[in-house]
Amino acid sequence: MELWLIEEHTPGYSVNWKIKQTIHTEKTAFQHLAVVETVDFGRALILDGIVQVTQTDEFIYHEMIAHVPLFTHPNPQNVLVIGGGDGGTVREILKHPQVQVDLVEIDARVIENCRRFLPELGQALEDPRVQIVVADGIEYVKQTEKRYDIVIIDSSDPIGPATGLFSQEFYQGVYRVLKADGLMVAQTESPIFNKELLSGVYADLQELFPLAYVYLTCVPSYIAGFWTFSLASKKYDPLQPARKPSLAEGAFRYYTPEIHHATFVLPPFVQKVLKGNS
Amino acid sequence: MELWLIEEHTPGYSVNWKIKQTIHTEKTAFQHLAVVETVDFGRALILDGIVQVTQTDEFIYHEMIAHVPLFTHPNPQNVLVIGGGDGGTVREILKHPQVQVDLVEIDARVIENCRRFLPELGQALEDPRVQIVVADGIEYVKQTEKRYDIVIIDSSDPIGPATGLFSQEFYQGVYRVLKADGLMVAQTESPIFNKELLSGVYADLQELFPLAYVYLTCVPSYIAGFWTFSLASKKYDPLQPARKPSLAEGAFRYYTPEIHHATFVLPPFVQKVLKGNS
Repeated sequence: MELWLIEEHTPGYSVNWKIKQTIHTEKTAFQHLAVVETVDFGRALILDGIVQVTQTDEFIYHEMIAHVPLFTHPNPQNVLVIGGGDGGTVREILKHPQVQVDLVEIDARVIENCRRFLPELGQALEDPRVQIVVADGIEYVKQTEKRYDIVIIDSSDPIGPATGLFSQEFYQGVYRVLKADGLMVAQTESPIFNKELLSGVYADLQELFPLAYVYLTCVPSYIAGFWTFSLASKKYDPLQPARKPSLAEGAFRYYTPEIHHATFVLPPFVQKVLKGNS
Repeated sequence: MELWLIEEHTPGYSVNWKIKQTIHTEKTAFQHLAVVETVDFGRALILDGIVQVTQTDEFIYHEMIAHVPLFTHPNPQNVLVIGGGDGGTVREILKHPQVQVDLVEIDARVIENCRRFLPELGQALEDPRVQIVVADGIEYVKQTEKRYDIVIIDSSDPIGPATGLFSQEFYQGVYRVLKADGLMVAQTESPIFNKELLSGVYADLQELFPLAYVYLTCVPSYIAGFWTFSLASKKYDPLQPARKPSLAEGAFRYYTPEIHHATFVLPPFVQKVLKGNS
C-alpha cells in the first residue's frame, strides 16, 4: 500500500508527499495533528492537513524568523514567542547567550508531540531558560505585566486557531508588551498566494510602529517557495543590525550577516504587493 | 470532468496542477509538448510532463537569466541563447538596446507552439534583431565562426534533449564562441534536488573561466522554489555590474540593481553544495 499526503494549497494547486510511515495522529482541542515520515523531506509536522515543518528545510524558516530580529537588537534578554510550539524557533533563539524565552502556545499537544517525535526541535523547550505558557497569545499580550525586547509571532496559516494573530488588535497588544526599544517579527505567508493578508499586515504595522519592513526568503516545503516575514520596531533599524554571529553562537546553515542584508532587498513585484496595488 | 496535471518531481514528491483547458499537445521529434491553461498559474508550457514556464511566474526566471549577465557587461551587442525556444529569455534580452540575438533551439516545434499559444513570450522571436537557428547547441558551439559577448544556456532539465548542455565538453565550446571579454550564464537547477549536478557544473566552470559564480533565486513553479544560475566570465565581474537599467530599458518586475547584488549572496547550505560536500 502507498500512503500519500495530498496538501491542498488552493482548489487548483496541491502537493503530494509520499509517506513512509505515519508516526502519530490525533485530534487536539484546536486542530488535527499528525507527525509523518516523508520520503523526501524527512519527518514532518502536519496541522489540519498543512505541512508546518519538515526536517529537511525547517532550518531556513527558523533561522530567519529568529536571527534577523535577534541580531538587530544590541542586547536581547527577554524574548516572547507566540505559537512556535514545535520548538524550532526557540532552539534558534537559545543560540544567543543570556536570553530568556517565554513561549505562549495555545495547543499543549503540539508541544508534547514535538518533544516526543521531533526532538531536534522540541527538545529546546526543555531548556531551563524557557518558560512555557499554554494560553491564547491574543489574550496573553492584552494581560501580561511582563515586557519584552523581542516578540516573535510564529503562527500557522491564518485559518483555524491562528486567525486572530494577523489582526491589528493583536499587534496593538504586541506593541504594548514590547519595551521602549523593542521589536517584533511575524511570519506573514506567501507574497503570491496571500497578497491581501501581507499588504494588510504591513499597513497595520506601519501605522503602529515607527519602523516596519518585510523580508523575503524561500521555504521549499511551503506553497510555491517564496515566504515573507514582517518586522516592526520601536527603535532599532534592522537594516543596521547591532550584532553579528560570534563563535559562541555558532555557525548557521542559512543566516549570515550578508543574508541579513540581502533578505530585505525586495523585487518590485513584492514592493507592489506591499503598496496594496498588486 | 476534472483534469489535473500531476508533475512528478521525485518518486516521493509531486505537484498537482488543475487544468482549465488543454490548448495543444503533440509528440515532437525530441519530446512530448503540451500547452495548458492552469487554474492558478495561467497558461503553461509542459515538456515531457515537466512545467517549463507559467504566465504567473515566468518573469522571475527570464529576468534573472537575462539581466544579470546583460547588466554585468558594459556593452553587450551579440548574444547567443542556447535553448529558450519559448522566447521569454529573448524578450528580456531585447530590452537592451543595440543587441542582436542568435537563438539555437533544437526543437522547432517549441518555437512554433510558443509563438502561437504563448505570444507574450514567443512573439519576441519575430523581432528583426533575432536570428533563429534550429540546431543542436552542442554542435553549434563546436562549429560556428561567430563570436559572442554573452552566451545564455536556457535549457530544460538534464534529462532528455538537454542532457549534454550540462557537460564540460559543451562548456568548452561555449568558452570558444565567447569573445575575449565574454561571459556565460546557465540555468543550473535546484540546490536541494540537484546538488551533484550543481557542484559539478560549478567545478567545471571554475576550471575553464577566471571567474565563476552561482546566484540564487526562487521560481515558484519549479521544484520546491529555490533555483540556481551559474555565471562564468572571462573578464567582467558580475559583483561589479557595469550598467544599471535606464529609462529606455524600462521597469522590471523582479530585477533591480539591488536584486543583482542580493542574488549572489548565498546561504551556507548552498555554499556547502558548491564545495561538493553537502
